[in-house]
Amino acid sequence: MTATSSHPLLHTPSNVVRIDLGERSYDIVIGTGLIHQASSYAGLPAARQAWVVTNTTVGPLYAAGVLAALRACYAQVDVLELPDGEAYKNADTLNLIFDALLQQAADRKTVLFALGGGVVGDMTGFAAACFMRGVPFVQLPTTLLAQVDSSVGGKTAINHPLGKNMIGAFYQPQRVLCDLDTLRTLPPRELAAGLAEVIKYGPIADMAFLDWIEAHMADLVARDPIALAYAVQRSCEIKAHVVGQDERESGLRAILNFGHTFGHAIEAGMGYGQWLHGEAVGCGLVMAAELSLRLGLIDAAFAQRIRRMVAAAGLPTVGPTLPGADNAERYMALMRVDKKAEGGEIRFVVIDAPGRAAVRPAPDALVREVIDACCLRE
Amino acid sequence: MTATSSHPLLHTPSNVVRIDLGERSYDIVIGTGLIHQASSYAGLPAARQAWVVTNTTVGPLYAAGVLAALRACYAQVDVLELPDGEAYKNADTLNLIFDALLQQAADRKTVLFALGGGVVGDMTGFAAACFMRGVPFVQLPTTLLAQVDSSVGGKTAINHPLGKNMIGAFYQPQRVLCDLDTLRTLPPRELAAGLAEVIKYGPIADMAFLDWIEAHMADLVARDPIALAYAVQRSCEIKAHVVGQDERESGLRAILNFGHTFGHAIEAGMGYGQWLHGEAVGCGLVMAAELSLRLGLIDAAFAQRIRRMVAAAGLPTVGPTLPGADNAERYMALMRVDKKAEGGEIRFVVIDAPGRAAVRPAPDALVREVIDACCLRE
Repeated sequence: MTATSSHPLLHTPSNVVRIDLGERSYDIVIGTGLIHQASSYAGLPAARQAWVVTNTTVGPLYAAGVLAALRACYAQVDVLELPDGEAYKNADTLNLIFDALLQQAADRKTVLFALGGGVVGDMTGFAAACFMRGVPFVQLPTTLLAQVDSSVGGKTAINHPLGKNMIGAFYQPQRVLCDLDTLRTLPPRELAAGLAEVIKYGPIADMAFLDWIEAHMADLVARDPIALAYAVQRSCEIKAHVVGQDERESGLRAILNFGHTFGHAIEAGMGYGQWLHGEAVGCGLVMAAELSLRLGLIDAAFAQRIRRMVAAAGLPTVGPTLPGADNAERYMALMRVDKKAEGGEIRFVVIDAPGRAAVRPAPDALVREVIDACCLRE
Repeated sequence: MTATSSHPLLHTPSNVVRIDLGERSYDIVIGTGLIHQASSYAGLPAARQAWVVTNTTVGPLYAAGVLAALRACYAQVDVLELPDGEAYKNADTLNLIFDALLQQAADRKTVLFALGGGVVGDMTGFAAACFMRGVPFVQLPTTLLAQVDSSVGGKTAINHPLGKNMIGAFYQPQRVLCDLDTLRTLPPRELAAGLAEVIKYGPIADMAFLDWIEAHMADLVARDPIALAYAVQRSCEIKAHVVGQDERESGLRAILNFGHTFGHAIEAGMGYGQWLHGEAVGCGLVMAAELSLRLGLIDAAFAQRIRRMVAAAGLPTVGPTLPGADNAERYMALMRVDKKAEGGEIRFVVIDAPGRAAVRPAPDALVREVIDACCLRE
């Protein structure tokens, strides 16, 4: 991809997606060299004190540079490194944040900066939502998944032993800085996992974007910053458009879960952490496309196209055989506890027509056929 | 007080104060026999499941009747009794609510009913704010303090070992039912504590209400339901008017803290639980009036009038001598950590003129004189 691209925003050093939510509006800034530049933090709420909340993997790579940049804006800047991993996204770790803030006499104006992937972002955002009933926070997402998914929507949460993301808040950041430089250190599996969510936005909302992704998949996998910048920008724009019509997740927003119903069954059925969320979603896209095909909504060529793109991103396209006697029944049982299920009836996000999604139930027998067709034979 | 009162609303069986917050608007219903009537719950959000969260003191008195009434509206209604007292307003008790909800497969529509005083209301409201990122909740306040104070403003919170109400959310209820029958079982000290907050609304906002309170203090202390109904209604109206201009507590709302700067020093200095919050506020009203007098803002007759009303409510009018060498210095030190303090300078809510309040600093020497004049001699 070159500067002669048809996307004029790419000629500027950084792209901005404005998330329009009235008083809670904010900018997503996408570019390189962002998080270590003091100018990236200009115009944020004034405060005496700021905190960088990160984890033990990301902190050593980027925290020092962020701290140096923030010292131009805040008299006191501290860093808190949390243990890394989904297993620590819980009330105990959340309390580490509150303890640190109160021990350092943080006040109602203290600004929190979430430096890391989805787990750090979700926990720091929730801590900001609750500390003294709400302090400002800024997201510095360092994974592709967090940049294209967590940047928009205001979802923050921690897990409870009885369920993922059960305790949380809708709480908007003051700004999101998607620094593409941080993606250079991302493990290849995590880059691919982020691409699953990028691919998703095409079939549900924007066929021109699907064409673009297909044409630039090699650039994306090679981490070309110009290609990544556009992928992040367009993903955020589409998500913002959908969320803007349904901020509190009552209807339309469910289409963002394309691929996620099958994907969640894979994640849960294999045991969390075996498959990355984005890997399970990638495979889930293939299965949801197959279901759309068997419902007569799309043709075989389109389903095949989605499968090919998922494969090109380096993601699995064949579902795992889940532990248990009857594989299809195991998938079905796991999907019946999905948050979209109503009265035990599973509701799937399907492609109605290329570029348009709908949420609907499907006959159990047909879903079993999809699972049988898409899963590894033992 | 009789039905020929000059307040026409008192002729109807229950009074309603509408809290106008756009999409988050709700009604405060004030009357007798409310919480045990199914009709009080008509029009609330539909759900399969409802929970009554209460404590071990209030639950045995009122929960059975509330459950019976709610069974007309919800297929499944459960009750959760928390341990009673401010000492339990913490993260561990909050988790008891989440555990119970998840063990019974509560969903995003489950409605929580907070049956109790301020502690139950604050914790249940915060649980509702966070559970699955927000479920509906209804307040059934059973203390006068909760009815006149917690009904308006949307403040929910738990305590942290390093500070009161440090972790919380602004979250509005769907409805508040102030059932005056529940005040019959309130211990006399707690009734008086609630009256401190009622008296407060007069000098800061409404001299006609102050006149009314003065004329009806005996009825209020005798728990006359018609007098209580008007006191609760007018208090909620005044608080709603102030909060409506400053929902997130950035300025004007601070006038609601009249009496609270001195009061918090008494509470903290004596050790939490020795003086009830409302008792400390009652005495704080006398001290804040004395400060207003010595600042030349009001005359001695008005300060004396406030002192007389506080005494008539059964509240202390003389400040305690706080443990420590220099009593006035101890008060000053405790007031310097008040949330209204800015850069170590204490800011007081004073009466500018009868019916109007302002927030301002005061010379340390003058504040010491007030403390000396208002406190017990050893």
